[in-house]
Amino acid sequence: MEVDAALARVRHMPFEDLGFAKLDHHRELRHGMPEVVLAKGKTPDQVVTIAGRLLEVSQNVLITRSEASVAERLKQSFPAAEYFPLSGAIRFWRDKTLRGKGKIAVVCAGTSDIPVAEEAQITAEVMGNEVEAIYDVGVAGIHRLIESSLRLAAARVVVVCAGMEGALPSVVGGLVSCPVIAVPTSVGYGASFHGLAALLGMLNSCASNVTVVNIDNGFGAGYVASLINRL
Amino acid sequence: MEVDAALARVRHMPFEDLGFAKLDHHRELRHGMPEVVLAKGKTPDQVVTIAGRLLEVSQNVLITRSEASVAERLKQSFPAAEYFPLSGAIRFWRDKTLRGKGKIAVVCAGTSDIPVAEEAQITAEVMGNEVEAIYDVGVAGIHRLIESSLRLAAARVVVVCAGMEGALPSVVGGLVSCPVIAVPTSVGYGASFHGLAALLGMLNSCASNVTVVNIDNGFGAGYVASLINRL
Amino acid sequence: MEVDAALARVRHMPFEDLGFAKLDHHRELRHGMPEVVLAKGKTPDQVVTIAGRLLEVSQNVLITRSEASVAERLKQSFPAAEYFPLSGAIRFWRDKTLRGKGKIAVVCAGTSDIPVAEEAQITAEVMGNEVEAIYDVGVAGIHRLIESSLRLAAARVVVVCAGMEGALPSVVGGLVSCPVIAVPTSVGYGASFHGLAALLGMLNSCASNVTVVNIDNGFGAGYVASLINRL
Amino acid sequence: MEVDAALARVRHMPFEDLGFAKLDHHRELRHGMPEVVLAKGKTPDQVVTIAGRLLEVSQNVLITRSEASVAERLKQSFPAAEYFPLSGAIRFWRDKTLRGKGKIAVVCAGTSDIPVAEEAQITAEVMGNEVEAIYDVGVAGIHRLIESSLRLAAARVVVVCAGMEGALPSVVGGLVSCPVIAVPTSVGYGASFHGLAALLGMLNSCASNVTVVNIDNGFGAGYVASLINRL
Amino acid sequence: MEVDAALARVRHMPFEDLGFAKLDHHRELRHGMPEVVLAKGKTPDQVVTIAGRLLEVSQNVLITRSEASVAERLKQSFPAAEYFPLSGAIRFWRDKTLRGKGKIAVVCAGTSDIPVAEEAQITAEVMGNEVEAIYDVGVAGIHRLIESSLRLAAARVVVVCAGMEGALPSVVGGLVSCPVIAVPTSVGYGASFHGLAALLGMLNSCASNVTVVNIDNGFGAGYVASLINRL
Amino acid sequence: MEVDAALARVRHMPFEDLGFAKLDHHRELRHGMPEVVLAKGKTPDQVVTIAGRLLEVSQNVLITRSEASVAERLKQSFPAAEYFPLSGAIRFWRDKTLRGKGKIAVVCAGTSDIPVAEEAQITAEVMGNEVEAIYDVGVAGIHRLIESSLRLAAARVVVVCAGMEGALPSVVGGLVSCPVIAVPTSVGYGASFHGLAALLGMLNSCASNVTVVNIDNGFGAGYVASLINRL
Amino acid sequence: MEVDAALARVRHMPFEDLGFAKLDHHRELRHGMPEVVLAKGKTPDQVVTIAGRLLEVSQNVLITRSEASVAERLKQSFPAAEYFPLSGAIRFWRDKTLRGKGKIAVVCAGTSDIPVAEEAQITAEVMGNEVEAIYDVGVAGIHRLIESSLRLAAARVVVVCAGMEGALPSVVGGLVSCPVIAVPTSVGYGASFHGLAALLGMLNSCASNVTVVNIDNGFGAGYVASLINRL
Amino acid sequence: MEVDAALARVRHMPFEDLGFAKLDHHRELRHGMPEVVLAKGKTPDQVVTIAGRLLEVSQNVLITRSEASVAERLKQSFPAAEYFPLSGAIRFWRDKTLRGKGKIAVVCAGTSDIPVAEEAQITAEVMGNEVEAIYDVGVAGIHRLIESSLRLAAARVVVVCAGMEGALPSVVGGLVSCPVIAVPTSVGYGASFHGLAALLGMLNSCASNVTVVNIDNGFGAGYVASLINRL
Repeated sequence: MEVDAALARVRHMPFEDLGFAKLDHHRELRHGMPEVVLAKGKTPDQVVTIAGRLLEVSQNVLITRSEASVAERLKQSFPAAEYFPLSGAIRFWRDKTLRGKGKIAVVCAGTSDIPVAEEAQITAEVMGNEVEAIYDVGVAGIHRLIESSLRLAAARVVVVCAGMEGALPSVVGGLVSCPVIAVPTSVGYGASFHGLAALLGMLNSCASNVTVVNIDNGFGAGYVASLINRL
Repeated sequence: MEVDAALARVRHMPFEDLGFAKLDHHRELRHGMPEVVLAKGKTPDQVVTIAGRLLEVSQNVLITRSEASVAERLKQSFPAAEYFPLSGAIRFWRDKTLRGKGKIAVVCAGTSDIPVAEEAQITAEVMGNEVEAIYDVGVAGIHRLIESSLRLAAARVVVVCAGMEGALPSVVGGLVSCPVIAVPTSVGYGASFHGLAALLGMLNSCASNVTVVNIDNGFGAGYVASLINRL
Repeated sequence: MEVDAALARVRHMPFEDLGFAKLDHHRELRHGMPEVVLAKGKTPDQVVTIAGRLLEVSQNVLITRSEASVAERLKQSFPAAEYFPLSGAIRFWRDKTLRGKGKIAVVCAGTSDIPVAEEAQITAEVMGNEVEAIYDVGVAGIHRLIESSLRLAAARVVVVCAGMEGALPSVVGGLVSCPVIAVPTSVGYGASFHGLAALLGMLNSCASNVTVVNIDNGFGAGYVASLINRL
Repeated sequence: MEVDAALARVRHMPFEDLGFAKLDHHRELRHGMPEVVLAKGKTPDQVVTIAGRLLEVSQNVLITRSEASVAERLKQSFPAAEYFPLSGAIRFWRDKTLRGKGKIAVVCAGTSDIPVAEEAQITAEVMGNEVEAIYDVGVAGIHRLIESSLRLAAARVVVVCAGMEGALPSVVGGLVSCPVIAVPTSVGYGASFHGLAALLGMLNSCASNVTVVNIDNGFGAGYVASLINRL
Repeated sequence: MEVDAALARVRHMPFEDLGFAKLDHHRELRHGMPEVVLAKGKTPDQVVTIAGRLLEVSQNVLITRSEASVAERLKQSFPAAEYFPLSGAIRFWRDKTLRGKGKIAVVCAGTSDIPVAEEAQITAEVMGNEVEAIYDVGVAGIHRLIESSLRLAAARVVVVCAGMEGALPSVVGGLVSCPVIAVPTSVGYGASFHGLAALLGMLNSCASNVTVVNIDNGFGAGYVASLINRL
Repeated sequence: MEVDAALARVRHMPFEDLGFAKLDHHRELRHGMPEVVLAKGKTPDQVVTIAGRLLEVSQNVLITRSEASVAERLKQSFPAAEYFPLSGAIRFWRDKTLRGKGKIAVVCAGTSDIPVAEEAQITAEVMGNEVEAIYDVGVAGIHRLIESSLRLAAARVVVVCAGMEGALPSVVGGLVSCPVIAVPTSVGYGASFHGLAALLGMLNSCASNVTVVNIDNGFGAGYVASLINRL
Repeated sequence: MEVDAALARVRHMPFEDLGFAKLDHHRELRHGMPEVVLAKGKTPDQVVTIAGRLLEVSQNVLITRSEASVAERLKQSFPAAEYFPLSGAIRFWRDKTLRGKGKIAVVCAGTSDIPVAEEAQITAEVMGNEVEAIYDVGVAGIHRLIESSLRLAAARVVVVCAGMEGALPSVVGGLVSCPVIAVPTSVGYGASFHGLAALLGMLNSCASNVTVVNIDNGFGAGYVASLINRL
Repeated sequence: MEVDAALARVRHMPFEDLGFAKLDHHRELRHGMPEVVLAKGKTPDQVVTIAGRLLEVSQNVLITRSEASVAERLKQSFPAAEYFPLSGAIRFWRDKTLRGKGKIAVVCAGTSDIPVAEEAQITAEVMGNEVEAIYDVGVAGIHRLIESSLRLAAARVVVVCAGMEGALPSVVGGLVSCPVIAVPTSVGYGASFHGLAALLGMLNSCASNVTVVNIDNGFGAGYVASLINRL
């Protein structure tokens, strides 16, 4: 019985085969989830082809880690494209319905972490959330963070981006009682090992409400924060 | 203004100083959060002293990674102690009010991952959640997972524990649309490097709804899942 | 006795000395094995000289990881050269005899893994095999993989290329009963550490029928798959 | 159409749920594949319970990495149990039908690698293969290997176990034209890093016919060799 | 000229040769520096012999990482020996002259870090310093740290011991303007990798006044802090 | 009481919010500490904006890791800018008051380490110290170091920069009795792993007076040396 | 021609097959080279059997990394056995002919490195060399090393054993003009990572006359030093 | 006494101070040792200045890892400069006296390893040795190596350069009885990790006569081989 129902569910997940890519279209069916494309590792032609197909079936489309040239090509056909050069994101945000129940705070430790924070913010917005951005509040100037603590406490989910020692999520985690999604960034040099130091720090956070995504994965953090904010 | 309000908030966070430990008591104030003690790295005397103090101010107390002997000592004074030898958890679960709005599914890939899954389950329960346990559904037998997919889809949050290649969260992530918290376990040998392989796999998950906690950190996963399930 | 026979065998392995390279010619003697050159790390002149000599003694020659300019130079003398820019392979496929007893399936997880899959496919073809290519069936969309499972089950050997978490070989391994050769790719970012995450994942696969080759080594996977398919 | 057939196939994969484990029984259906249990990480009770169930449905059962005490308990109920203390394998080999088409050579570099080679040999035998064991032929005494080269060349598949620098598979790979499955072992000290040196060496083998399994994974190598030898 | 003076200086550095050890005695000449022995890696006999010799020429002797049995043996001959079982230090503190110009604060993040903090404190004391111990002020409860911030600000040098994510030195570094010596501890599990996470975090501290010593090297931190406090 | 005083202290730490950066201005209040900007990871516009603001409130400003073009832009508005192309530092040194009580020696092992040593020297100077530079005294030519040992012994703090095996701080540490700050540099190749070898060497120094900063962090070393030299 | 001569050479390398081991006997033919057995990883029975066979054909036999019990068993049959408990070496030194042309100096940095130095010394002696042992001359007390520099300069080859930062070979390398063989030891804690720090340091030595062997491989260093000393 | 003699020796080691470099001139005093400069990490001006000074005092000068432009500049003033573009070496070889007592064999595994082998060869030659170059004899074609085994056996020292799995030194080590210096190269891709795999392999060599230098350090290997060949 249960198996049959389960298989029926799998049976009806639609996708479209472009040869070099198989596009899932059921995501959009879940009430306004954007289609998302990771441009890195794909040829410009592949990105444009995929984006074009998705824009036919979906209101909102997000392309991450893209070259400016792809944004240019898309803008010519689809003037709604917004390009964010710091993070390389391209956003088509045609359905701006708010779906999140509260605010998502996106926090970053230093100015150099802003590109990652921006990716998280763009993702959360295109998924229907109001975002509170709090930048440059690294832990070595704790008074700057405390000054922001009420805004943090007002959020329903918090995304924290930090490179170097990656200590910020632990401190933020102690200041709020909601889930904190930590994003290690590759900001730093030497023994930061391209974000490894921050990643390990966040995984070992002494704050119990912290989970972690991949280095520089602002998109993933914004995505999960949005899922949580819909609950 | 804002600074003053923020500082006032910090001002009123109470804690108790035992010399070797400073106990936070405001957690309990947040409606039924249990007090938690990590026994690993503390002497038995320290664990017993801390636990004794917490049991005076809190209904529910969770002690993780404990030796059996500590459980014995606590049971003599506090017969309500439950000891779970696989995970080493000791639980005082005196207030069983349900606080979660839905079910939390706790999934594990193999029999050897059960200790970690158990820690997640115990944590989620003591924090007021109903848990659906789905064990031994590793990805090399995908039919076992598909058979469970409806139960998975019914959960509001999913915790997935897996060692070795740590692939299960990605597959589960694609089968559900809610947040998935991945727990790499140290199960495996050789190039699993005590959970590193699973950890890296989960951080690189191609499923967008996956966040990760530390290796073997069933507690952290259960804790965050509980926070999400209260929203 | 046995030693003498063994030494006699070594005695009669012919090779040709170019000074900077010693070319083995006995491979071709084994019924249609192509000569193979790894261009990476050699100067263009060295590659062209070696290739020229091999084309005199062998029907099929495969050059991997080559610059386009070398392909151009070779095409002028040997118009039969095919160049594959995604993988950098140059193929001389003059003897197209089928030598494999069944099909080899070449599977990849995402669009970005195609260059590696292509290298495996080209290798398997030039060694006399029919290849079934199944692309973009990553584990986070398990329905796409299940849709392809009959084609997978029809193969005599399966090559699976995946970056990021490298989970696909485990799932494929459970769906087929033939040998699976896993190729980790360097696709990903951050904690993928240039393919290390996928490599470790595959080495720890819970599917018993999986063996692994080096990161991005599509050639090696296609080569071994071909050897197996001749048995 | 294709999807329905694929799902039907998944639909009919039987398994049995013991709560802490879900036992796949379709492996036996594939003509004499043994059931296999990895004892490491399971409690003795779990191993005994699982083994007992499998022995009811399967002629041949292999338990790897087991303590002697479990072997004792099993022998009392099932006197057919063979225990191999070097590797910790327990074998129930009740159906000795030969299913492999040729010989499998199992080679090891030094005396200390024998436990891993033994695991490979036991696995290959219980899966219906004749095994040629060639031990202590490390590359620093190449004459010992050359003396064995005719026996190597007579094999249909070769398994090579080596610790320390892990160089043996490359040399063996050059001496034979069949597939070689390399097993790095944790034999060594210092910069062998528990088998990492051998593992990396094998993954970078300059012999094209080499694939690799996890450190100390004699079982996996024997398993895949058996699959290949049936083709 | 300069060379001759330099060589004359080297010429007059006295030491005593025990065969298995060469004891430097000029340290004591520098006004009350204790002689120090690292017991780890030496046989008990070697430790006792060295300690005996040093006690003849020096008022204060510190032995670190020692077994209790060595302390027992030393106490019998030298009743002044103090043994600290948490850190394994043995202290002979016969000259208690204060030599530091201010206070040294020794801070630790959690109860499990106390053994390392204790080693730092004992070292600083035997070198003639007054120590302010501030324990269990981890960053996830920032109010506990802020409560201690005046005591921190009153110190002339601060030693900070922390395991897990090792974030505490960065926060402390921002609260004080004096030098901070960070000691990563091996406290933690999983991806703490025996203190590596904390070490990397501290090396990447965004606070400019932080330097770092080896994992668990409370002695080194206490030693350098003492040197600084004499200036 | 204590909490209120502590909070009051935090309350009065001023900063200025530029949106992408929050500038701390209380550093300058501490008697001539320069404002410092790490240019790496910031856009040229951000660096110029921040520098412009800081130059309004602070006599001395140090910008590290900067492109030449930013120096050019700043020089046009502020002709006092000095640019150091080896290290990429830009210095505004308008208040040259000496604040250090003694000399700081800055030592480097090889010519290739000079850029890092230069960063340390520039930092120490702008913070009011006299610097003794001792270059190219690597340990394989110990006579060169001994020749400099009197100048070393005359310093109140020593900064030692070394790449490759990073052995110099240990030898220097034994020649002086003051604090030594070790800076591993990324100089080297192969198994230096971009400074990791030197970093590990320095952390394991057998000289007790050595602490360590991040790879190539000449700034940090100069900064802490300056703090110590003010004591 | 050349091939035939080469093969004839391989043809005549004798060895003896014990099943679990193949013993090379041609080493002894090379004028007094001892037979060597690494006990680690072999069962006591295997060690005793191999040693017994070797003692029949060779004057000198060296067994490294052995348990005391094996030494006991061998002493009963062969009273000439010497057991060295620090390093675990067992030596049969029946032919004490001097074969080295000069002295080999064996140097170690600290008392804890003596077991590794002892293994080197025993090896060099049993291979017919006079050894000059210079212990506890770590680089932080450079005067102790300089005091020994004439004895160092008198050696024909130098072996240097050091753990922790592994700096000693670089300094020794600069003081002598003969080959230096560096042995990293696993002495240290924390970021020594079981000898990795010392290993990396030595590989990056700025002294050109240094080569390196595996961590704790005193035997290998003594062996190569002996080969060089015979030239 | 001994100390005074030792210090006198240090006293008379001459060097010349250029400010950014301190040039040792006593090397030349040791009968024809060339002066050596590592160009990598130095500015072109520094290299040219140092080389110019050395050419005044030394017959033979070797500059390694240099850009072509520096060679051009040097050739204009000193037409004797030879530039080797594969390895980047510049050689001034004005005194061609043979000082080695036998031949040095320089062996490499593949064509891509030639640049490193070339650096070893050039070094050995400029230090007065006759070199036997044996290229492209990787272990997967063992017949090619055996064909060269007599030439190998005729050498007094052997240098072996290999990337990828780095297995060649172990096989060569077993074929000769003289010292073997292994040079891991960065040739390879994926899990070769820029030479780490080859390095670890060589450190774990089962051949006792192998020592190792840094990745790509052909110079170091040629240097030590030359020292040995003078003995």
